[in-house]
Amino acid sequence: MVFCSKSPSKLEDIDRQLVKLLGERIAAIAEEQSNHMNSAVLKTELDHAGVPEFVWRNLLTSAAAAATITPSVTEDLGRTDWPQQVTLIGGTGKMGQFFAEQLTCAGHQVRIMGRDDWDDAEVLLGNADLVMVCVPTQQAVSVIKKAASYLRETTALTDIISIKAPIVEAMLTYHSGPVMGLHPMFGPGISSFLSQNVVVCPGRSETAFDWLLRLIERNGGKLRTSSATEHDRMMGTVQGIRHFMTFGLGVFLATEGVDVARSLELSSPLYRLAIAQASRLFAQNDSLSLEIMMGSPESRGILQRLSTTYAQLASAASCCDRDSLKRAFEIAHQTFQTVVPQTLPETDHIIESLSVFLAASTVESLEADCVQPSMQPPRKLNRIVS
Amino acid sequence: MVFCSKSPSKLEDIDRQLVKLLGERIAAIAEEQSNHMNSAVLKTELDHAGVPEFVWRNLLTSAAAAATITPSVTEDLGRTDWPQQVTLIGGTGKMGQFFAEQLTCAGHQVRIMGRDDWDDAEVLLGNADLVMVCVPTQQAVSVIKKAASYLRETTALTDIISIKAPIVEAMLTYHSGPVMGLHPMFGPGISSFLSQNVVVCPGRSETAFDWLLRLIERNGGKLRTSSATEHDRMMGTVQGIRHFMTFGLGVFLATEGVDVARSLELSSPLYRLAIAQASRLFAQNDSLSLEIMMGSPESRGILQRLSTTYAQLASAASCCDRDSLKRAFEIAHQTFQTVVPQTLPETDHIIESLSVFLAASTVESLEADCVQPSMQPPRKLNRIVS
Repeated sequence: MVFCSKSPSKLEDIDRQLVKLLGERIAAIAEEQSNHMNSAVLKTELDHAGVPEFVWRNLLTSAAAAATITPSVTEDLGRTDWPQQVTLIGGTGKMGQFFAEQLTCAGHQVRIMGRDDWDDAEVLLGNADLVMVCVPTQQAVSVIKKAASYLRETTALTDIISIKAPIVEAMLTYHSGPVMGLHPMFGPGISSFLSQNVVVCPGRSETAFDWLLRLIERNGGKLRTSSATEHDRMMGTVQGIRHFMTFGLGVFLATEGVDVARSLELSSPLYRLAIAQASRLFAQNDSLSLEIMMGSPESRGILQRLSTTYAQLASAASCCDRDSLKRAFEIAHQTFQTVVPQTLPETDHIIESLSVFLAASTVESLEADCVQPSMQPPRKLNRIVS
Repeated sequence: MVFCSKSPSKLEDIDRQLVKLLGERIAAIAEEQSNHMNSAVLKTELDHAGVPEFVWRNLLTSAAAAATITPSVTEDLGRTDWPQQVTLIGGTGKMGQFFAEQLTCAGHQVRIMGRDDWDDAEVLLGNADLVMVCVPTQQAVSVIKKAASYLRETTALTDIISIKAPIVEAMLTYHSGPVMGLHPMFGPGISSFLSQNVVVCPGRSETAFDWLLRLIERNGGKLRTSSATEHDRMMGTVQGIRHFMTFGLGVFLATEGVDVARSLELSSPLYRLAIAQASRLFAQNDSLSLEIMMGSPESRGILQRLSTTYAQLASAASCCDRDSLKRAFEIAHQTFQTVVPQTLPETDHIIESLSVFLAASTVESLEADCVQPSMQPPRKLNRIVS
């Protein structure tokens, strides 16, 4: 038995060959080879091998996505701006940890500064090439003010806080060197920058951040330059509305006493996604939720107007006021038609992807130990606070 | 050049081997082989081959899902209940076509009956083993009444209409043979039953439908037995609420004049999904939307109460009434915690899956001709109405 379990199994053999071929396929796409199998031939091969088409579609999609990223460190070797000394203030949170990992993987020297580390500020901040502020919003301005006094004039100062105008202003006020605000438009749970939007609010001497922005882009991140004002206004929409809709759905189902587990059995894929999002929201701490909802007077105004829209539509539905509902539909139809071509394939993909995931989860316990989280990049952080 | 394009390319070679190995992997999982590569070894192999971990995760997920389905026809050969003579009334719609394809692929004889085919009803309905009603809700009862007069007493009568109580009642009233109501909880765009819920409302002599239910299950569908009453009540929640939320979001963004395309550039993955769902809704005909919203007095009542919840929450946010919001959060937290373990990994998966899809779509135009829709199963329908 010992001998048997040590010799490579058939599955192990298959996987070894699969990995090698996937690597070759990704390289072939990256070289823009496009001499594909004829689709009729492909269909025959798939049928013959017993491979459903969704498996092949997913493989093509993954391989194509992989061909868009070049996360290798090697191209940085020998550059004068590599490696950088980076200090993350408040980097013990999940988003801070994500950035710490990405920076470490790219070969930079990363140090985490917790709230009890101000005695070491001289070293942690005074020698840094880049300081990134990753603290909760409420503490941000005071932390920036305090930290700025330790910085050299050449140190680049940035943050990943979800409001930008007051933060960028504080960084510009208290620090005389390079300043740039960032807002990564994703939460913990993401494993890479792939396709993630990162909002960039320019401050001062932005070239000092070139290496950081290149790192994000090389790993698939999408840099979106925006003024702090535009950013903050749009966040009322992007974060506020979606959060509020999900929050309201959850509270409503709870107060109605709906059997949520049973509703999942009778659900469509998109309803299931709505429930999954609500579960996610209510599984977190309530403080972020309350912060988003009570946010600024502007964002509270948006929620008021959104709830008025809902009330008007519910009332129109209630009176069977078909004309009002048709008009409302038409207005929205006009607004959305520009984004339909890009977003419609996304919902098709997501629905199929959820189906595949649900089917796999009935057997995947077998495989759980081979994937996540043991495959996370090794952590080599100089963590002062653990 | 002609010679060159006819000889197999490197990519074609790779793909041929990949397909073969995928087939072997799926078979190995189906045989419950679980002797996996050690995760450290796997990580090394992936790094060495230049394969990002998400590619491997997706491949494992797809292969595991594929191992759960057994769509082969061969096991039906020689059964006394195979092949069946099936007539779909109104089978020219997208959902009817989906069922026609699934039944045809399984080897059954499928005939489509359109609204102008009543002259052939004697043949189309009189000889059928199964008749499936796929017409719009408003016409369903009258179609059932008319069709029933042509049916033999042994013919199994079913439907795929999204309300069940009045439809199942009509089928039981007008037909004396086997009756069962079905509600496939998915829309057009789905390519298989994989992981899709199909609600089953028993009527009479249900064993006549065993072959049909087995077909759905074998292709990955989840049969959910429910009374017509429970079904109709739950649909107010499952269909009505989600539709209303998305409808309201779209109307609100349109009336606020939000630049939706720009908002996508500054969006989180989940906001993007909400926008994609709204685009999908408003790209369709408005009649289904209005039907869902004005539906029954019960469903209109649900929308009224949902909009009241939104108004209360918006008002609490507006007054910064932290205590009310905290209480609301807590109630929802309690309700949702039972489904968190199953749904949380789903949102993580969906977010990653969307990222991969978006990245791939920048290169996938190259590959578009190799996937969908040319790979749909060949249509061998006896289509009276095209």
